[in-house]
Amino acid sequence: SVAYNSGERSENEDDVEITTPKEIYMVSDGTGWTAEHSVNAALGQFEHCLIDRGCSVNTHLFSGIDDVERLMEIIKQAAKEGAMLIYTLADFYLAESAKKACELWGVPSTDILSPITEAIASHIGVSPSGLPRGAPGRKIPLGEEYFSRIEAIEFTIKQDDGALPQNLYKADIVLVGVSRTGKTPLSIYLAQKGYKVANVPIVMGVDLPKTLFHIDPEKIFGLTINPVVLQTIRRSRAKSLGFSSDMKGTYSEMDHVRKELGIAARIYAHNPVWPVIEVTGKAIEETAAVVLRLYHDKKQKCLMPRISKRY
Amino acid sequence: SVAYNSGERSENEDDVEITTPKEIYMVSDGTGWTAEHSVNAALGQFEHCLIDRGCSVNTHLFSGIDDVERLMEIIKQAAKEGAMLIYTLADFYLAESAKKACELWGVPSTDILSPITEAIASHIGVSPSGLPRGAPGRKIPLGEEYFSRIEAIEFTIKQDDGALPQNLYKADIVLVGVSRTGKTPLSIYLAQKGYKVANVPIVMGVDLPKTLFHIDPEKIFGLTINPVVLQTIRRSRAKSLGFSSDMKGTYSEMDHVRKELGIAARIYAHNPVWPVIEVTGKAIEETAAVVLRLYHDKKQKCLMPRISKRY
Ligand SMILES: Nc1ncnc2c1ncn2[C@@H]1O[C@H](COP(=O)(O)O)[C@@H](O)[C@H]1O
Ligand SMILES: Nc1ncnc2c1ncn2[C@@H]1O[C@H](COP(=O)(O)O)[C@@H](O)[C@H]1O
Ligand SMILES: [Mg+2]
Ligand SMILES: [Mg+2]
Repeated sequence: SVAYNSGERSENEDDVEITTPKEIYMVSDGTGWTAEHSVNAALGQFEHCLIDRGCSVNTHLFSGIDDVERLMEIIKQAAKEGAMLIYTLADFYLAESAKKACELWGVPSTDILSPITEAIASHIGVSPSGLPRGAPGRKIPLGEEYFSRIEAIEFTIKQDDGALPQNLYKADIVLVGVSRTGKTPLSIYLAQKGYKVANVPIVMGVDLPKTLFHIDPEKIFGLTINPVVLQTIRRSRAKSLGFSSDMKGTYSEMDHVRKELGIAARIYAHNPVWPVIEVTGKAIEETAAVVLRLYHDKKQKCLMPRISKRY
Repeated sequence: SVAYNSGERSENEDDVEITTPKEIYMVSDGTGWTAEHSVNAALGQFEHCLIDRGCSVNTHLFSGIDDVERLMEIIKQAAKEGAMLIYTLADFYLAESAKKACELWGVPSTDILSPITEAIASHIGVSPSGLPRGAPGRKIPLGEEYFSRIEAIEFTIKQDDGALPQNLYKADIVLVGVSRTGKTPLSIYLAQKGYKVANVPIVMGVDLPKTLFHIDPEKIFGLTINPVVLQTIRRSRAKSLGFSSDMKGTYSEMDHVRKELGIAARIYAHNPVWPVIEVTGKAIEETAAVVLRLYHDKKQKCLMPRISKRY
């Protein structure tokens, strides 16, 4: 029902700014991370046009907004700047006020909490509390899950880059791969989700720790990557680390890169239980999704691959 | 328009299971993390009743669903289990198919991507691509932001727990606090968002590194916590580390805890530029929101505190 631009660049490719950026305001009574995460995903749908490709967007996150006065100030400012508003407000009155004020002042708005909350409410037959996460009296119970997540993060930090191989048996997940396949950021991403992760580098001329072959092989995952992409990444890494051109040579030279990936491929072939995950062109969270899908499938052996949780 | 239960426990408190758990299916053509994050936030609205408080919920995440066959299988299974469906599907045809199939088979459903995408589309005047994140041809450019986020994570790991004080000047954010105020998980959370973080412990009888007082004080944040809560956390920590009862004594004894917090308070008083952040009862992401709000306010000195980004 809306007419869109094609989003294509204008004839004059030399224009520095083709359009003035559009503003998106995000407001939450909590941290704002839910709004930010959702807006980020939605903006993925406009990648063909963002930044210097014809349109650009500025987002502005306002967190901890739990009173109507500050809320109204923000909406007024949004109206002035021609911004749209995307909000998560647990309090029914506040959410309603945001909606009405936006209508009144001509600010396009989207409530991204209420639709899910209402759908869940009617599904489980319980009414929502309407209390924002920081509401007085709402104590966050420092439950088991909280402590085990922190433990996972601390464990994962200590196990980075092949450290403490004697502890590999304690890990939930062990990642194996050559340098710059993203083992460290992937380990940390998974740790944040509560998994104890260890990562073990494959380096030409260095033996893998023996313990790697004594632990449960079902929890080991190999990472692989396209050699050309890996070389590009290693070059940028070598530059940022200020490697001498000698070291840079061995580390990011194509011949060396291919040989090291060849070694990795042979190790994986000798250990066919380890799934081999292609990371080329994947964002860290995408590789994490693949790892966890496989991890949970192995545990459940169920027909329809899924990750289940109890609340 | 929906009649809800009060969600209160039944008379018989000994019942192990008061109600059968309600099922929530989450489906994404991508990682599923957006759906999981949003559902998690929404479930916060039912905390008064979840788990053993009268109702319980099982979530099931199906990621990487980008064909109609698997989608229909999942929806059929949802219908069988009496589950509801929450989905993010970038492809218009797939999203529409999900909606129709859910109507047909009586599965309550909520599309959480389309409303935001459509609102943004009409705001910026550009049509969405309809391409899921993993679509062939959609190459993730290993841009500057990607590398700088990974660098932030690697930096932060190396700076954990007061390591390498000579590098404090390279950090964007420096966290100071006594043991078990959540410095490590908070540092990692911020690192994932692209900030280089160092954390420095305050330990009775140990001097703070001199470099801490030579770097820009505007980037230093002190953490503080209620002594009773800290003692509880330390006790559980000491137990999980298997501390001898002697060490446990000094570490988690109330007298020791209070003294150490007193030292921290005096250090903060001597450095009034450092904001002091109360972490008691806050989840890591909540403390992160407070830190980043202050961090960006200091930089912008603007009237309306916000975190802005360009896309
Ligand atoms: N544990 C929780 N309890 C209650 N409400 C929550 C919880 N987590 C998130 N929310 C609400 O969900 C929305 C998104 O949260 P946030 O991601 O912190 O901005 C806000 O309206 C919060 O108040
Ligand atoms: N960078 C991106 N480009 C295109 N679509 C995206 C991007 N990131 C997320 N999405 C879409 O947003 C929804 C949520 O993504 P996810 O959190 O990976 O499940 C899915 O439908 C994805 O296809
Ligand atoms: Mg590494
Ligand atoms: Mg620590």
